[in-house]
Amino acid sequence: MVKVGIVGGTGYTGVELLRLLAMHPQVDVQVVTSRAEKGLRVDSVYPSLRGFNDLCFVEPDAKHLTTCDVVFFATPNATAMHMAQELLNAGVKVIDLSADFRLKDVAVWEKWYGAKHVCPELLEQAVYGLPETNRVAIKNASLIANPGCYPTATQLGFLPLIKAGAIDTSMLISDAKSGVSGAGRSASVVGLMSECGESFKAYSVPGHRHLPEIYQELQNISKSAVSLTFTPHLVPMIRGIHATLYAPLTDDSVNLQTLFEEFYADEPFVDVLPAGAHPDTGDVRGTNRCQIAVHQPQGGKVVTVLSVIDNLVKGASGQAVHNMNIMFGLDERAGLNQVGLYP
Amino acid sequence: MVKVGIVGGTGYTGVELLRLLAMHPQVDVQVVTSRAEKGLRVDSVYPSLRGFNDLCFVEPDAKHLTTCDVVFFATPNATAMHMAQELLNAGVKVIDLSADFRLKDVAVWEKWYGAKHVCPELLEQAVYGLPETNRVAIKNASLIANPGCYPTATQLGFLPLIKAGAIDTSMLISDAKSGVSGAGRSASVVGLMSECGESFKAYSVPGHRHLPEIYQELQNISKSAVSLTFTPHLVPMIRGIHATLYAPLTDDSVNLQTLFEEFYADEPFVDVLPAGAHPDTGDVRGTNRCQIAVHQPQGGKVVTVLSVIDNLVKGASGQAVHNMNIMFGLDERAGLNQVGLYP
Amino acid sequence: MVKVGIVGGTGYTGVELLRLLAMHPQVDVQVVTSRAEKGLRVDSVYPSLRGFNDLCFVEPDAKHLTTCDVVFFATPNATAMHMAQELLNAGVKVIDLSADFRLKDVAVWEKWYGAKHVCPELLEQAVYGLPETNRVAIKNASLIANPGCYPTATQLGFLPLIKAGAIDTSMLISDAKSGVSGAGRSASVVGLMSECGESFKAYSVPGHRHLPEIYQELQNISKSAVSLTFTPHLVPMIRGIHATLYAPLTDDSVNLQTLFEEFYADEPFVDVLPAGAHPDTGDVRGTNRCQIAVHQPQGGKVVTVLSVIDNLVKGASGQAVHNMNIMFGLDERAGLNQVGLYP
Amino acid sequence: MVKVGIVGGTGYTGVELLRLLAMHPQVDVQVVTSRAEKGLRVDSVYPSLRGFNDLCFVEPDAKHLTTCDVVFFATPNATAMHMAQELLNAGVKVIDLSADFRLKDVAVWEKWYGAKHVCPELLEQAVYGLPETNRVAIKNASLIANPGCYPTATQLGFLPLIKAGAIDTSMLISDAKSGVSGAGRSASVVGLMSECGESFKAYSVPGHRHLPEIYQELQNISKSAVSLTFTPHLVPMIRGIHATLYAPLTDDSVNLQTLFEEFYADEPFVDVLPAGAHPDTGDVRGTNRCQIAVHQPQGGKVVTVLSVIDNLVKGASGQAVHNMNIMFGLDERAGLNQVGLYP
Repeated sequence: MVKVGIVGGTGYTGVELLRLLAMHPQVDVQVVTSRAEKGLRVDSVYPSLRGFNDLCFVEPDAKHLTTCDVVFFATPNATAMHMAQELLNAGVKVIDLSADFRLKDVAVWEKWYGAKHVCPELLEQAVYGLPETNRVAIKNASLIANPGCYPTATQLGFLPLIKAGAIDTSMLISDAKSGVSGAGRSASVVGLMSECGESFKAYSVPGHRHLPEIYQELQNISKSAVSLTFTPHLVPMIRGIHATLYAPLTDDSVNLQTLFEEFYADEPFVDVLPAGAHPDTGDVRGTNRCQIAVHQPQGGKVVTVLSVIDNLVKGASGQAVHNMNIMFGLDERAGLNQVGLYP
Repeated sequence: MVKVGIVGGTGYTGVELLRLLAMHPQVDVQVVTSRAEKGLRVDSVYPSLRGFNDLCFVEPDAKHLTTCDVVFFATPNATAMHMAQELLNAGVKVIDLSADFRLKDVAVWEKWYGAKHVCPELLEQAVYGLPETNRVAIKNASLIANPGCYPTATQLGFLPLIKAGAIDTSMLISDAKSGVSGAGRSASVVGLMSECGESFKAYSVPGHRHLPEIYQELQNISKSAVSLTFTPHLVPMIRGIHATLYAPLTDDSVNLQTLFEEFYADEPFVDVLPAGAHPDTGDVRGTNRCQIAVHQPQGGKVVTVLSVIDNLVKGASGQAVHNMNIMFGLDERAGLNQVGLYP
Repeated sequence: MVKVGIVGGTGYTGVELLRLLAMHPQVDVQVVTSRAEKGLRVDSVYPSLRGFNDLCFVEPDAKHLTTCDVVFFATPNATAMHMAQELLNAGVKVIDLSADFRLKDVAVWEKWYGAKHVCPELLEQAVYGLPETNRVAIKNASLIANPGCYPTATQLGFLPLIKAGAIDTSMLISDAKSGVSGAGRSASVVGLMSECGESFKAYSVPGHRHLPEIYQELQNISKSAVSLTFTPHLVPMIRGIHATLYAPLTDDSVNLQTLFEEFYADEPFVDVLPAGAHPDTGDVRGTNRCQIAVHQPQGGKVVTVLSVIDNLVKGASGQAVHNMNIMFGLDERAGLNQVGLYP
Repeated sequence: MVKVGIVGGTGYTGVELLRLLAMHPQVDVQVVTSRAEKGLRVDSVYPSLRGFNDLCFVEPDAKHLTTCDVVFFATPNATAMHMAQELLNAGVKVIDLSADFRLKDVAVWEKWYGAKHVCPELLEQAVYGLPETNRVAIKNASLIANPGCYPTATQLGFLPLIKAGAIDTSMLISDAKSGVSGAGRSASVVGLMSECGESFKAYSVPGHRHLPEIYQELQNISKSAVSLTFTPHLVPMIRGIHATLYAPLTDDSVNLQTLFEEFYADEPFVDVLPAGAHPDTGDVRGTNRCQIAVHQPQGGKVVTVLSVIDNLVKGASGQAVHNMNIMFGLDERAGLNQVGLYP
C-alpha cells in the first residue's frame, strides 16, 4: 500500500483526490492537512465521504508528512514551493497540483504569479506531469508539476498535429470554456451562482496564467516558433472543460482522423471519437478521460479540434493519481476506471 | 458471474444500470434491448460507456433474454407485465424498475396507470423491493417490484417514526422535490431546459401515481389508519430527490436522533446524519445512499424529516442492483460502493 | 418627480431598485451610496445599467440623503436603525428593505438578529409594508418595514384562509424554496455555484429569522392561536420563491377557488390562477406579481396552497416601490408593469 | 397604433414578441396564430402574459392577417415563404424572423435548408434587417428578413474591423456559444435539461446554416475575399449568445478601442464597453442590446472581439421590433428600452 499525504484537503482538488483515492485499491491515505479545519473530521466537512474516511484534518507540518511515500499538494499557488525541498530530502515523492513547478523559466513564473520563487533550483528537476508526453520521465521523477486544466485539454488537442508537422504553429487559437469549479472553493462574489449562473463570459483575455504554460510545452515539441491566442471562458456548470482549437493546416494530405487515432491508440485516458463527432463534457464527468474529435470544416484550410475533460479529474486530481500510479509502478488505471456520470 | 439482460437500455434508468453494472465485479451484461436503436452499438449512443461495453442493442425478444440469470426492465409502465411471465417460466429472475408490480390491488393500479393489467396473478408473488423493509422476502423472490423514487425517499424517512408509534399517521405530509431526470429521456416540451431551468414549480398536486404506492406501503407497517398529502415539485437540476416530511408527534419522550440512528445502524445504504444536519442531494450524487436528518423545530409538536437520494440510483437502478445482490447472495455493496460526486 | 436615495446600492436588492426605478416615469434617483465602491460610477459596477444611470456611488452620509423625498435602505440588517431617525427628523420618508423595523417586540428582534436595537421607539410607528393587508396605514406612513421574501409568499397564501376562518391555525406548514439570490451579493462559500448548483437542501430548519415575522403577522389577523412550521430550502436557480403551504381544513363548505379569487379581485399584484393550476416561478421572473393556486388534494382534509414570487421584486425591491407608490399617491403599478421574462 | 399580427405565437420568438409588444406604447396586437393551440387563450398557454393579452390563438389564415399593418412570422423555416406574397399583395408589411428570405442565392438557400423555395422572386426585394448596416433600406422595405442570432452577434463584432480594412478576412473565426432557447420550443431529447444541463459541447462543426448567412453579409461589406470558420456551441443556460471572434490584424496603427466606439457612437442598441472589459450575457438578458469589447491579447497579431446579445431579443424578436419601429417611423427605442435583468 502506498502511504499518501494530502496538503490542502479542503479545496476542490483536495476533496477530489480523497474521492479517487478512497476507491484506489493500493493506497492508504494517512494524512490530510488543513490549517482552517484542523481537528475536524474530514467527513464532517464533506458528508459525501462518510464511511470512506475516518481521518481528522491536521496542521500542514512536515513531521506528519515525512512518514508518507508521496505527498500531493492541493494548495493555492506559492505554497508547495515552501515545503517541497524538505519532503524530497526525507525521501518523500511530491506531486504538486498547483503551478509552482510548471514553468522552467523562473522569471516568467515570477511575472505571471506575482511572487518570488523560493526554490528555483527545483524547477530543473521537476517533471511536467502530462503522461501522454512525459511518461518515462514521470516514472523516474521525485517531483511532479501536475499540469493545469486548460493546458491539459489544449495540449492533448494540438499534440498530434504539431508532432506530425501538419499545422502552422504561428497562429494557434485555443478558445477554452471551463465550469466554475476551476475557480476553487474560496469565498468570492464572482463565483456566486447569482453571478455566474445563467450567464456566460470570457475572462483574462489580455493574458491568463495558463498561457505561458501552454506556450512552453507546445514550443518544446514544435520545431518552429509557436504563437498562441488563448481565451478562457466561464460556463454556468460545475465540472468540465471544452477546448475548441484552431490552426491553419499546412499539409492537406494528412488524414486527420487516422492521425489522431494512431497517435493515441495506446493511451488509457485519451479517447478519439469517430469522425464527425462532437464530444460533450457531460460524457467525461467524474472520469480521468479526455475525449477528442478532429474536424476540417467545409474542407477548408483550418483544422478544428474539440477536446473535453473533467477539470477536476484529468485536469487536476485524476491526472495526479495517474502520475502517482506511473511513479509507483502500479496499473495506470488503478482508482481511475470509472464510467462517466451521465446524465 | 451473474448473466444479466436489460430491457429498455436507452432510458436514464437503463444507462444508469449499465454504468453501475460495468463497475460490478460479479456481473456480465449480455443483452441490452432497444427497439428504436436496434443494431447500434450501445457506446455509440452513450459515449460515456466507450471502453466499458461492446454490445449492440437488440430487439426485446424473449429468445435473447431467457439465457440470462436475471432481467431488469428499465421500461415505461405497462411494458414489463407483457414479458414477465414468460421469463419467470424460463427460470429467469425479473427485476422491474417500472410500476407494473408495485400495487397489490389491481383496481387501484388500473385507475392510476390508465391501462388494463395483463397479468394480475403475478401481483401476489411480486416482492416490493425496498431492502430496508423486505430483505428476507427479496432474498427468496423471483419477481421484484423495484420501488419508485419518491416512495423510496418518503418511506425511509417515515419508517422509524411509524414503527416506533411516535407520530399521528392521520396527517402525514411529504413535500418532495425531484431533479428533472426523473421525467425520463423522452422528447418533451416540459423537460426542455428552457422550460424547467431557472424555475421551480409543483406538479400533479391533485394526485400523483406515487401516492397509492407510498400509501400502500406505509399502511402495511402502521397499526393505525394512514392519511398522506404528497406534493411533488420539479427542481432545476438533473439528479436528486429531497423529501421534506412532516408529522404531528404523539410521543414527546422519544429521542428522535437515537431512534433513527439505531433503526438504520446496520443498513449499508441509509446514513443518518448528526443532529442538526441538513442533507444535500449533492452529497449523494451518483451513489446508492440515502442521507437522513430528523428535526423537531422550535421544540414543537411537528417532526420534520429531511431525506435525500439520487433518484436514478437509490431511487431506481442502484436499488435494483442492491436487490439483485440480495437475490444472488452477493455482497450487498458490490458495484455500489462509490463516493458521491461532489462538487 | 419623487427624489429618491438608495443606501446600499451594491447588493441585489439595491441594484434591483435601480433597475425598477430606471423604468419608473415619476422618479428621479439622486443618490446611491456604497462605502466600498465610493467614487465609482454605478454603471461601471453594473454594466446592465449603462445608459440608464449616470451617478457615482457616494458615502452613506445623511447630508447627501436629506435632500431626498424618500430613502430606501437596501442594507444588511442592523444598519438602517442607525440612520432612520435622522432622516425622519428631516422629513424624509424611509423604506427599509432589511428586517430592522419588522418585529414589534424588541426582545424577539434582538433574540433572532443577535444585536441590540438602537431605536426601539421607532418600532411602534413603523408600518409593515404588505399592501394587501396594510394599504391604508402605508399611505400615511413615514417609515415602512418592507416585508421579507418568505413572509410575503407565505402570508399571501394563508391570508384568505385565515380571514375566512377556514383552517385550523394550530398546525400550519410553510415549506418554502428560494433561489440563491436571496442570500445576497456577499463573498461566501455556500453561495458558490459549485456548492449550490445541481443540488438541493433545506437550511435553518431548527429556526429561521423569518419565522417570528410570519408568526407575528399571521397572529395579527387570526382570531385563534397560530402555530407554524417553516422550512426554507435552497433551489439551484437565481430568482424565485415557491411556498407550498399546508393547513387542516375546518370548514368543508368553503369554495376555495372562489374564496381566493374574490379575496384578491382588486389587488394589482396578486394573480389567482384557475383551478387546478401549478404556478411556476419562471412566470413571475422580473415582475412584482404573486401567482397563487389553491388545491384540496384527493378531496381530503388538507388544503395545499402554491404561492410564487420573484424574491427580488415582490419579495423585496418591487414591493418597496409599490409601497413608495402608495405613500406618494402614484399609480400603484407605476414602474412595476412588466411582463415576466419567460423563458 | 400599429396593428400587428403574429404568425406562430407559441414558439419562443413568438412569445418574446408578445412580451415586448405588450410594453410597446404604439402597438396593438390584434392577431396571434397557432394551428396547434387554436381557440385557447394566449395567456392560458403563457401565464406570464396574464393581464397583458386577452386574445385567443386563431388559425394562420390570410383573412385574419390582412387587416394588420404588419405581420411577424415567428415560424419554423420554410413557412413564411408560403404566405408572404399574399400579405404583401394586400399591402401588409412582413417581418420574417425565420431564414426564408435571408439568402440572396436561392441555390445556396435550398442546399442549406433542404427544401424548394416557393417564392424566389421575393429574395431580391427582401431587405436583410440588420439596422446597423441597412437602416435606410429597412425604412423603405415591405419585406424584412430578420437576421439570425449567431449572424447578428458575429457581424456586429467584425463590422468595424472589416469596414476599416484592419483585418485579413481570409482567416476569420467565430467561436460562438448559445443558450438553449435558441433551439426553440419543440419536444426533443437533445434539448432536455438532463441532456444539456451541466454540460457543454460544440455542434454542427462541419457546417451550420448560419454560416452562409454570415458569409454573404460579411462578403457584402468586404473588399476582399472572406473565409470564415464558424463553430456553434450549446451553453447550459436559457438566454444569451457570446461570440468570440478572431482575425489576423493587418494594420497595427489602428486604435481598436476608438475604432469601435466611433463606429457605434450613434447606434441605440450597440454598446462598446471600456477597454479591457469582458461583456457578460447576463448583463443584456431581456434587452435588445449588444455589448462588445475588443482586445489585442499580449499585443499580438490577432484581434479578439467579444460580442454578447440576448438571442431572443437582439438575436430575434427585439431586432424584429426595432425593424418595425424603423419601418413605421417610430422612435427606434419604443418598446425596447428595458434594463437587463441582472442577476
